[in-house]
Amino acid sequence: MDSRIIIAVDAMGGDNAPSEIVKGAILSLDNTNIHIILVGKDDLIHEALKDYKYDTSRVSVINATEVISSGESPSVAIKTKKDSSLVVALKLVKEKRAHAFVSAGNTGAILTGATIIIERLKGIERPVVAVPLINENGFTLILDAGANVDCRPSFLLQFAKIGSVYVKNMFGVAEPKIGLLNIGTEPLKGNSLSKDVFKLLSESSLNFIGNIEARDISTGTVDVLVCDGFVGNIVVKQYEGLSESIFKMLTNELMSSTVTHMDKLDDLKKKFDYSEIGGAPFLGLKSLVIKAHGNSDFVAIKNAILQCVNFIEKDITVKIEENLM
Amino acid sequence: MDSRIIIAVDAMGGDNAPSEIVKGAILSLDNTNIHIILVGKDDLIHEALKDYKYDTSRVSVINATEVISSGESPSVAIKTKKDSSLVVALKLVKEKRAHAFVSAGNTGAILTGATIIIERLKGIERPVVAVPLINENGFTLILDAGANVDCRPSFLLQFAKIGSVYVKNMFGVAEPKIGLLNIGTEPLKGNSLSKDVFKLLSESSLNFIGNIEARDISTGTVDVLVCDGFVGNIVVKQYEGLSESIFKMLTNELMSSTVTHMDKLDDLKKKFDYSEIGGAPFLGLKSLVIKAHGNSDFVAIKNAILQCVNFIEKDITVKIEENLM
Repeated sequence: MDSRIIIAVDAMGGDNAPSEIVKGAILSLDNTNIHIILVGKDDLIHEALKDYKYDTSRVSVINATEVISSGESPSVAIKTKKDSSLVVALKLVKEKRAHAFVSAGNTGAILTGATIIIERLKGIERPVVAVPLINENGFTLILDAGANVDCRPSFLLQFAKIGSVYVKNMFGVAEPKIGLLNIGTEPLKGNSLSKDVFKLLSESSLNFIGNIEARDISTGTVDVLVCDGFVGNIVVKQYEGLSESIFKMLTNELMSSTVTHMDKLDDLKKKFDYSEIGGAPFLGLKSLVIKAHGNSDFVAIKNAILQCVNFIEKDITVKIEENLM
Repeated sequence: MDSRIIIAVDAMGGDNAPSEIVKGAILSLDNTNIHIILVGKDDLIHEALKDYKYDTSRVSVINATEVISSGESPSVAIKTKKDSSLVVALKLVKEKRAHAFVSAGNTGAILTGATIIIERLKGIERPVVAVPLINENGFTLILDAGANVDCRPSFLLQFAKIGSVYVKNMFGVAEPKIGLLNIGTEPLKGNSLSKDVFKLLSESSLNFIGNIEARDISTGTVDVLVCDGFVGNIVVKQYEGLSESIFKMLTNELMSSTVTHMDKLDDLKKKFDYSEIGGAPFLGLKSLVIKAHGNSDFVAIKNAILQCVNFIEKDITVKIEENLM
């Protein structure tokens, strides 16, 4: 590969594919180091590309005749749809023809496909989805945000290690504080999973702060918060839904406000929209996979792509691998 | 028992005991049907009572020399501290000398004590904590909010039955909509627990709407939402913490606002403070037990007590029992 960062984009994944995906991909070219490979039905992609002026030497299109939709069984879809945009794009990454993959498609299928095709890092039993949640001081990275609904204790220890490396290297936090999401702060609190994980984290060399209650997610007590994917998915979605509801209610309450107040409200609201960040990385794989929201618009796709650059420039995968004891 | 509603109050439970507990109890006497039994160290209780003018015929004090603190192991504390305010008060309920019990003390100890002393209803494997969460249209009752961290599928079916009866009878919702908190809306989504519970709920005679994602808790899709106590506790605490953080951030943003705006913000903020409601009922027991927040002030205690009246007048325990198939 040359010095450019080559990103394979699933042009067919998500509710707004391919138009918004393509638009976002084109906008990401503002970063002059990026080369984009759009993967999917080439006639549709070329049709969408017609709307834009761009450096054609920096955008490739690779045809894939099949599409995996959101309702499909991940394992069946990956096995049977060999010419889907998802499978074709993942193979590009596997074969080192692309550095990273961005998709707004079926989460389960991305995860299954990535695990089979890109493969996990040595020492990682399960890849994990990480989502940064804004807090009063910055953000907390929560993992697993939904990839693994039934977890063994060792998975969460690995999530903690992955998260620690990620936050340290992506955001320059010297010694990331790790917390275990639990229903009380005492060591013996929680369900059988959290008790076992507490022990593992305590014995690890990580900067483990202890159990964190959900009310402290937004106060910013820790940099990295681990939990199983069932709980994490609920936290992330509640976060999204509750903040949206509060802002909706507030907007109604403050209808009579001046324009200035409404602007301030909008600004704050935007901060709470975690899709603004672009997407959620699947971590623990041998290459980067970013899951964008199913309903991503072009801004989200653009941001997901830009996120890859940051990730790759900081060599996060290698750093995670090095830090797996 | 006479026609009055007699409520045993744990004067020693919670961070602000006994002063705030006593103050709240006295204020609850505004409801002329209530008789209060304050249970705890009688010298401290009498000392606290000195500050108030009240109808002494409506307040009794029963001495209990021991206190179960928040850090203690529930089962050990219940077994060894026979003269604790918690155990003594629960026995009053068991012996029908009180209709209900209110405590802001150690949740686990209340639950263990209540299960042993008051006992579960027939057909109920585990008592459950129910918390109403405000949503855009009213509220959603979530159970289990933290009593049972490891659940079997049958527990959640029972929680749904209990919740349905509770909402129907306490709030007059004709046919409460029941949801299963899950990470997707499709029937086969989730972890092994949620898949099994989905099946049980589908086969039941309940008005089961299906899986509910956490982002829809605050939109008010269902009246009753079931989950295990680990997940439920996280939802409730995140709800509390996140809304608090948003309001804190908003207040900072809108510092320059007029008094009117700040008042409106305060009003909305108050709606989100679920401790305003008073406490969370433990359901599935043969008598009512209300768990108030550990940091309850007198308003919360007062409200918890008033809540008992409503519960008892509506004969909720019997109705739950009748509806267990």
